[in-house]
Amino acid sequence: MHLISYDIHSDYLRTKIAKTLIQYGLHRIQYSVFMGTLRDSTVSRLRKVLHNYTQDRHWIADDTVMILPLHQYSEDHISFLGKEIQKWSEIQGNLHTLVL
Amino acid sequence: MHLISYDIHSDYLRTKIAKTLIQYGLHRIQYSVFMGTLRDSTVSRLRKVLHNYTQDRHWIADDTVMILPLHQYSEDHISFLGKEIQKWSEIQGNLHTLVL
Repeated sequence: MHLISYDIHSDYLRTKIAKTLIQYGLHRIQYSVFMGTLRDSTVSRLRKVLHNYTQDRHWIADDTVMILPLHQYSEDHISFLGKEIQKWSEIQGNLHTLVL
Repeated sequence: MHLISYDIHSDYLRTKIAKTLIQYGLHRIQYSVFMGTLRDSTVSRLRKVLHNYTQDRHWIADDTVMILPLHQYSEDHISFLGKEIQKWSEIQGNLHTLVL
């Protein structure tokens, strides 16, 4: 499971990166935080795509993308205050396991 | 180590919660993402304070705060694109260990 979050100043680039993250199978947990269960090969490809965005003319020096691989421990101990997260088992990749 | 991120609509409440998180020893990694190494007792107290904020009249149904305990695995495998994170060893609690 991975968590990816960003601070991107350009609306154009932020929208583009959000779309990419969702396209690669991540779910939007909060406005700038995405989580999901991806294959290692998908993460590698995604890293390359994200790295390309840092070369975009809309990317500024203050922009950051954080890629955080999560351990089972985090999945077991995560908690939310406020709105419940939809599709939590899908985000954890359980659905995928069931399908297999 | 903990990661706390939020989606809070009210500027007033968001500012208040950000100040609280920093007061409790977390570092602002991104606009809505905070990380740091806290004692278990501090995390418990912080949870109560955050829970109180959900009762504030500025809190709306869509607001969320995510509390994610991180495993050493995440610290070892975290990566950033773009701006380097300042005070990373302080965030990881290494400084604290050195002081002790």
